[in-house]
Amino acid sequence: MEAERPLDTLNKARNKRVIIELKNGKQFTGMLKAFDIHINVVIDDADERVDGEIKRKIGTIFIRGDTIIFISPTNS
Amino acid sequence: MEAERPLDTLNKARNKRVIIELKNGKQFTGMLKAFDIHINVVIDDADERVDGEIKRKIGTIFIRGDTIIFISPTNS
Amino acid sequence: MEAERPLDTLNKARNKRVIIELKNGKQFTGMLKAFDIHINVVIDDADERVDGEIKRKIGTIFIRGDTIIFISPTNS
Amino acid sequence: MEAERPLDTLNKARNKRVIIELKNGKQFTGMLKAFDIHINVVIDDADERVDGEIKRKIGTIFIRGDTIIFISPTNS
Amino acid sequence: MEAERPLDTLNKARNKRVIIELKNGKQFTGMLKAFDIHINVVIDDADERVDGEIKRKIGTIFIRGDTIIFISPTNS
Amino acid sequence: MEAERPLDTLNKARNKRVIIELKNGKQFTGMLKAFDIHINVVIDDADERVDGEIKRKIGTIFIRGDTIIFISPTNS
Amino acid sequence: MEAERPLDTLNKARNKRVIIELKNGKQFTGMLKAFDIHINVVIDDADERVDGEIKRKIGTIFIRGDTIIFISPTNS
Repeated sequence: MEAERPLDTLNKARNKRVIIELKNGKQFTGMLKAFDIHINVVIDDADERVDGEIKRKIGTIFIRGDTIIFISPTNS
Repeated sequence: MEAERPLDTLNKARNKRVIIELKNGKQFTGMLKAFDIHINVVIDDADERVDGEIKRKIGTIFIRGDTIIFISPTNS
Repeated sequence: MEAERPLDTLNKARNKRVIIELKNGKQFTGMLKAFDIHINVVIDDADERVDGEIKRKIGTIFIRGDTIIFISPTNS
Repeated sequence: MEAERPLDTLNKARNKRVIIELKNGKQFTGMLKAFDIHINVVIDDADERVDGEIKRKIGTIFIRGDTIIFISPTNS
Repeated sequence: MEAERPLDTLNKARNKRVIIELKNGKQFTGMLKAFDIHINVVIDDADERVDGEIKRKIGTIFIRGDTIIFISPTNS
Repeated sequence: MEAERPLDTLNKARNKRVIIELKNGKQFTGMLKAFDIHINVVIDDADERVDGEIKRKIGTIFIRGDTIIFISPTNS
Repeated sequence: MEAERPLDTLNKARNKRVIIELKNGKQFTGMLKAFDIHINVVIDDADERVDGEIKRKIGTIFIRGDTIIFISPTNS
């Protein structure tokens, strides 16, 4: 059995909702549409959150990978 | 069906208006004219915004990719 | 006898609980599921801790390698 | 028709005046003489500006690419 | 006689105690078990120190190379 | 006629005096003896300046490229 | 006559005393024993200085290149 790789987790999260936390403290949630090896990601139906509250709705957003701390699939 | 890649989203946004947020907190809007794999971008008819208000009009601007947090197509 | 390499330690920690400390001061604990040469990691059953206290439970989380200071296997 | 690339914009700005804003907040204007793929640039007849006012004249200046936020051609 | 290389020093320190100082100001001491060309290191029997005083014992720890300022073999 | 490249400017400045400004705000002046593609440079007869005043004389100094904002030939 | 390269200066400083200034403001002096293309260096008989005063003696120390601002041979 081959060892699991980190990008496998992102692949399984495709078309599912994720939380993304950035180095500047911002959080985005949305549906993960695409990612690459630099961890550049695109999410759809995105909103920016502060302390769990929706601050603004953004639609589609391309996030540069080097600004990302973590990506976590949500259960919703 | 091949998986979508993040740069596909930028490609679809070509010649459309985008919002670009930088690591230093500045926001630019303008028409996306060009981008590369480093996420260096060129926007035309650009303006710099602070809290949604236009601060200054800039014309054409080349933005170095490593200063960018996100790029989001607008509906306008 | 070949010299040990740092990733050997991460490999031995697979499916065991680890503490991960990030450059922004946050700590995560969870079961190490995957890592790569950039030290991108995925942990399961994760929680975020502040001063040893659980702040929130997160489930599965992908952490970008360049945000990580250290990874330490726990004894539990 | 081939898609435009960001460096095409810099190429068209060669021997024209540009504004360059740096990550440390400084602005330089001058005639763009040279650039490379790292966005290292050389400008001639350069001056440093603070809030649009000329602070000092510098002559020729080589600017390291990784300190640059944006480069914008001016109309003058 | 071939010129000495920096990694030779780390190689000689293998299985000996070292002090490692990180960019965030933290210091770790422990037995150097492994390192690679990125200066990722693993130390065993590690403790974190503040002003020379042991703050906490950690056991085995993988430290990402880009967080390290220096590594110094101790005489103990 | 081939387009000028940024390093051509540094090459012409060899054995001439330059001002080098660093990301930490320090300025060095001296005779440019050597540089490479990383913009690592060596200057001779160097002094460190604060607000145009000589703070200390240093002799020969190797400066790591990634700490440099700009290099400007002086007329003296 | 071939143009001098920055690492030639470090090579000439081998087994001589150097001052090394780091991005965090610390200064180390010691005998330069080894360096590589990343400007990782090893110095022997090292001491850490604050404002020219010896703060502590360290012995042998490996310094990661990306933390270094400059290296300067001393006359002593």
